[in-house]
Amino acid sequence: MNEDLIGELEEISSNEAVIRDIESLKLFSKDYTENLSFIPEVIVKPSNTNEVSAIIKFANKHKIPIVPRGGGTGLSGGALPVYGGICMSMEKFNKIIEIDTENFQAIVEPGVITQVFQEECERLNLYYPPDPASRGSSFLGGNLAECSGGPRAVKYGVTKDYILGLEIVTPQGDIINTGARVLKNVSGYNLTQLIIGSEGTLGVITKIIFRLIPLPKYKKVMLAAFGSIEESAKTVAKIFQNGITPSALELMEKSAMQAAERQLGKKFPNGDAEAQLLIEVDGNYEDSLDRDIEKIAEIVTENGAYDVILAEDNNKMNELWSLRRCIGEAVKSISEYKEEDTVVPRARIPELINGVKKISGKYGITTICYGHAGDGNVHVNILKDNLDEKTWESNLETAIKEIFRLTVSLGGTISGEHGIGYSQKNYLPIALSETELALMKSIKKTFDPNNIMNPGKIFTD
Amino acid sequence: MNEDLIGELEEISSNEAVIRDIESLKLFSKDYTENLSFIPEVIVKPSNTNEVSAIIKFANKHKIPIVPRGGGTGLSGGALPVYGGICMSMEKFNKIIEIDTENFQAIVEPGVITQVFQEECERLNLYYPPDPASRGSSFLGGNLAECSGGPRAVKYGVTKDYILGLEIVTPQGDIINTGARVLKNVSGYNLTQLIIGSEGTLGVITKIIFRLIPLPKYKKVMLAAFGSIEESAKTVAKIFQNGITPSALELMEKSAMQAAERQLGKKFPNGDAEAQLLIEVDGNYEDSLDRDIEKIAEIVTENGAYDVILAEDNNKMNELWSLRRCIGEAVKSISEYKEEDTVVPRARIPELINGVKKISGKYGITTICYGHAGDGNVHVNILKDNLDEKTWESNLETAIKEIFRLTVSLGGTISGEHGIGYSQKNYLPIALSETELALMKSIKKTFDPNNIMNPGKIFTD
Repeated sequence: MNEDLIGELEEISSNEAVIRDIESLKLFSKDYTENLSFIPEVIVKPSNTNEVSAIIKFANKHKIPIVPRGGGTGLSGGALPVYGGICMSMEKFNKIIEIDTENFQAIVEPGVITQVFQEECERLNLYYPPDPASRGSSFLGGNLAECSGGPRAVKYGVTKDYILGLEIVTPQGDIINTGARVLKNVSGYNLTQLIIGSEGTLGVITKIIFRLIPLPKYKKVMLAAFGSIEESAKTVAKIFQNGITPSALELMEKSAMQAAERQLGKKFPNGDAEAQLLIEVDGNYEDSLDRDIEKIAEIVTENGAYDVILAEDNNKMNELWSLRRCIGEAVKSISEYKEEDTVVPRARIPELINGVKKISGKYGITTICYGHAGDGNVHVNILKDNLDEKTWESNLETAIKEIFRLTVSLGGTISGEHGIGYSQKNYLPIALSETELALMKSIKKTFDPNNIMNPGKIFTD
Repeated sequence: MNEDLIGELEEISSNEAVIRDIESLKLFSKDYTENLSFIPEVIVKPSNTNEVSAIIKFANKHKIPIVPRGGGTGLSGGALPVYGGICMSMEKFNKIIEIDTENFQAIVEPGVITQVFQEECERLNLYYPPDPASRGSSFLGGNLAECSGGPRAVKYGVTKDYILGLEIVTPQGDIINTGARVLKNVSGYNLTQLIIGSEGTLGVITKIIFRLIPLPKYKKVMLAAFGSIEESAKTVAKIFQNGITPSALELMEKSAMQAAERQLGKKFPNGDAEAQLLIEVDGNYEDSLDRDIEKIAEIVTENGAYDVILAEDNNKMNELWSLRRCIGEAVKSISEYKEEDTVVPRARIPELINGVKKISGKYGITTICYGHAGDGNVHVNILKDNLDEKTWESNLETAIKEIFRLTVSLGGTISGEHGIGYSQKNYLPIALSETELALMKSIKKTFDPNNIMNPGKIFTD
């Protein structure tokens, strides 16, 4: 972008909304994805939808890449300006416009931080269940772009299940509304669900209509220790087969827990188990939950758990959750790594993990598995550890491809909640056929004929 | 279609799969939508996906309209061949391929009857909650095409919430798979949700991957009688505000109940109330449900219910449901009519119904309101009754437009679960802007450049 173009952009944008200093540009060149950095040419921080529209029309006219950015916590490089151009930070869209306690709905701007919204809902006795690990800094708009999940998805579904409608600005600068303030809607194509999970490639979200649910009154948390990861994985499906749907069912293998213990500088009950399941149930009647927990304790014991710890109060519950919650960060600190976001039908998790371990062995790499076992979503962290650079580079991609082929052969797919973005796009053809990819690309082209909106994401060029 | 084309079609199709006798053509010229009839030129009944693909490729090559057809129970004329051409009946796709009791999933062909699938799931202690009124004869493929709902949507969501993936044949004859056998998926655009509710305009569904849930062990049903429809409508949102999510919350006004009583030839408790709410709760613990029911009884009484009837056993429960379930048919038998499928945020139902009654008064027409009040979905039946033909014709469309404008002004939309199809397409611009419609049409064009797949639906030409 030359000075003329930047001048034009400054005229369109509100006061001091075009930023070019190198420190800011560097800050916006990264997200939480390992080892990626792409510097934008300018950063814009629009304050309202009309400004977003004007900037996009400008970018479209001059065919300048434009990348919407939320909290920058993405794990597939979705918000990185891989072709430079304009980084559009949505941080000024930070208002919870309305929480409608009569209809259990909320109208929210995309720059609101996930946790801020969650807490505001809870204060009003309402519940917004999607709960990505990065909730303390992720923006809701980014959660929609990547269709974030988190541990509660097993009972409550993912981000897409809480969105009734959107205001978006298309890649041609048109402001449109999708959906309505209703729980059922078959009035034209479901553009809402096409936009969610499209990783900022089909437009910029400027307003969100959320559906909320009543906040469950009670929850109970338990930790079950197993002598083998296989036993723990096999137990997952059994719990559901007994008619119980936990509000979270997380699996952690030993190396994940040990990383977490090191990170937090404390010991957890049975932290030396080969694997543990963290199981939560929630609902409105405490005695029903007690019966669920008792039944689950029976099931896990029958299936090989050698110890079961029940959190006796809220503090203990939070402590057990802290073990699980810090794993992501903890694993990062061990070594250079690459995180994969495999998802399979939950009864196939034992096959997935067995297969991952075999592939790791074959290529001499270390893998740490943990994640949302209840919904079949296992995060596979591949560590460089002591491998030399050359072996790491040559083996990593081959190993990932084998892991993904295995995942797909089990009925699964290559991303459950992190998205394809930039880092995974070379692997997408493992999950989708050429025809499927061509159809998706033709939809992209319909929305964005000049390919200005978050180019270089999802699809290989 | 001339004889040469029909000969070509016969060669592509399997034995006796091309049907042209006038009786059959007449049968396939209608669905459950009032007063519509369009004769197809031929009917095909393919037996497998490759045959579907070959027929669509033939139709696309010769630019012949092709209309996929399920059970023929649609309420917006979605399956009618308004431009003649080929009617593709999916009745031979009638196999439940697999119910996976480990992962709570099912692989099913689209010609399976909804109730057959529901019952097969229940036999295995699994639950498929979508429950359209026509479940005894509707096909699952049609349920997907229209995103059917029914009374359980208030707690469990609609058809789209149970679909993990699809096999479809595109309007260009390509066979593609969308989604995967997983509960979370952000691997490319969500084509699954774009297809669901697209009313057969973007392709033919040939296989469905369903998500199932555990069958709740108990349910309780209550009927609450009110002295005014307004009081009953106002009570709806209050129940949710007390933290209870019923598995069904249906509203029936007096004239709807009286039609049902006439139809069934029997009297119901408080059948002469101005309005009643039918409320169901379900779950795994009977004592929790008893507490829910007790709380609901308190709430409805505080809000004006003068009598509350609790079904003491399964027979009584089914009897109360039979009152509600037969209303659709019963209202049809009164007079010529037109059914609208309004949906609003549930706390706005009193305004919606008040408004509908005012509009009816203004145009001298009779309206009967009933439906899924818990999710804000009110079916408004407009009856011709004693109106002369001329007044009926001149007033009907104006009245409908006013009702829809009101619906949209309340944050709602014009169809919750019946679809736009043929009968509602002139009204869609009340709910969607020109830009939104243009974007949807451009998606249609991307999928179907020759506009052969169910043309004349959703959009005005």
